[in-house]
Amino acid sequence: MAIKVSYQGQPGSYSEQACQKFFAQPNHHETEIDYLPCTTFREMFAALNKGLVERAVVPIENSLAGSIHENLDLLLSHPRLHIVGELDFRVSHCLLAPKNVNFADITTVRSHPMALSQCSRYLRSNNLTPEVAFDTAGAAKMLCPSNSVGVAAIASRAAADLYDLQILAREIEDEERNFTRFLILSRSKVDYNPLAPGKTSLVFSLMNGPGKLYSALSVFNVSDIDLTKIESRHIHTVREALRERVVEFNEESVEKRWGYVFYVDVAGHTDDPTVASALAQLQHITTFFRILGTYPRH
Amino acid sequence: MAIKVSYQGQPGSYSEQACQKFFAQPNHHETEIDYLPCTTFREMFAALNKGLVERAVVPIENSLAGSIHENLDLLLSHPRLHIVGELDFRVSHCLLAPKNVNFADITTVRSHPMALSQCSRYLRSNNLTPEVAFDTAGAAKMLCPSNSVGVAAIASRAAADLYDLQILAREIEDEERNFTRFLILSRSKVDYNPLAPGKTSLVFSLMNGPGKLYSALSVFNVSDIDLTKIESRHIHTVREALRERVVEFNEESVEKRWGYVFYVDVAGHTDDPTVASALAQLQHITTFFRILGTYPRH
Repeated sequence: MAIKVSYQGQPGSYSEQACQKFFAQPNHHETEIDYLPCTTFREMFAALNKGLVERAVVPIENSLAGSIHENLDLLLSHPRLHIVGELDFRVSHCLLAPKNVNFADITTVRSHPMALSQCSRYLRSNNLTPEVAFDTAGAAKMLCPSNSVGVAAIASRAAADLYDLQILAREIEDEERNFTRFLILSRSKVDYNPLAPGKTSLVFSLMNGPGKLYSALSVFNVSDIDLTKIESRHIHTVREALRERVVEFNEESVEKRWGYVFYVDVAGHTDDPTVASALAQLQHITTFFRILGTYPRH
Repeated sequence: MAIKVSYQGQPGSYSEQACQKFFAQPNHHETEIDYLPCTTFREMFAALNKGLVERAVVPIENSLAGSIHENLDLLLSHPRLHIVGELDFRVSHCLLAPKNVNFADITTVRSHPMALSQCSRYLRSNNLTPEVAFDTAGAAKMLCPSNSVGVAAIASRAAADLYDLQILAREIEDEERNFTRFLILSRSKVDYNPLAPGKTSLVFSLMNGPGKLYSALSVFNVSDIDLTKIESRHIHTVREALRERVVEFNEESVEKRWGYVFYVDVAGHTDDPTVASALAQLQHITTFFRILGTYPRH
């Protein structure tokens, strides 16, 4: 069974690799993936929202692509989409060049600015000049023996295979632990074994004031529900995302009413009665509340 | 009195503008700023750590430069540095071109990928082709009438003045509320009026397990201390930063001992006895604890 999946980037990108890794897991029945590469995160969300694909694979933490907040906000402004899975993906950079090129002849290295910065120690110690490109896979794709004398790219191992390049060096990143957390989104909820370790992602707002967050978290504390992530956002940073949701939008009243927005992940399945009643109670004391999804823990 | 300040970027960048704005505030005595532009965030931190400058101005949330986490981690790995101020800075993009160029002749627009993506709707609707550059100010600097036919740059208004360019369009970003929060760092603590509204930034770790964060936050709740920010980080993402701090580093024990790292901002001055005793109590129940700084609220 084939499944249609959108991601941001192009063939050979880390996002595409993350898709492959996620759908290759034993609990998935998909034998084939039809990819829809998208230029921007917004397009990737729109493709899923419009029904052009069945899943979107979205980097959400520590992404090479830059802003994770952009995707948190896009999640907020697409109320029909659900998180149905997650993946921790190890990003490891390779130095790629056309075949039959010697390492000694390389002087320039092209990649996405974030990848170049993650490998800056390596580039400096090898006297290589960084040159910016839109993305890692794109930098690899553009290399060819005739017009790229002395040029290499920083990209994934998959990009080497895809664009018929050699790997001159592996794991050239300065910090060895370079992980990106991806979320898998769908238009409909996906059932999973309620006895398997699950995670539930929420977003909610509270009135401003001391103790408000503490009260909110007490609903999890009394039921021994573990928090695996918590992040607050200033209201002005999510205002645009909320604007699309609030019918009678009034900036001042929203500012007063919503105060902060919190993104919280808790351990557990929404079908678990303990989790369900904690969430029901939380909803009571919030000014905005949405379950972004419940999914098996990676 | 002149003050030496490092920032990441180059003259005309948003970071440089943020420095100007911060030190132009009436409570500052500095009449002049000696800038030290740095290529990377790491260099900017190193310049301050080594004493080459007296302050570093660091984007920490929603930055154009991509990862804010990189700067949170750099803060963690530089225990001698203190946060002494903060600034909310509105980022507004302009379309710049050499003087005497007509808008109708522009076909290509150069900038940092994040700025290009923040203006993607504008670029699309005007049929302009994006082209990547290392940074916004750099893209502006490189424009000159002789070798940039049909090319414009996305950068700040300040870059237009500095590089003698005209502003073809203002506020071309897709989302009107584009803010970056900057932190001002110093090697020594800076006194401020304890009666003025203050903020204190903390980082701490807790053992894993349900209710641990809830217990930690209770120290603020009993004293009516308001939380203005909270963010959890998975341990593997901060491991590199911690590695530099922990003398006998053992990955497994660190994983077990540290669990999560939390970045928390609370309202109040560390000289306020209520805040001081809450922090002392919090320190007791954490596996790692550091006050990153106390400073006037922006």
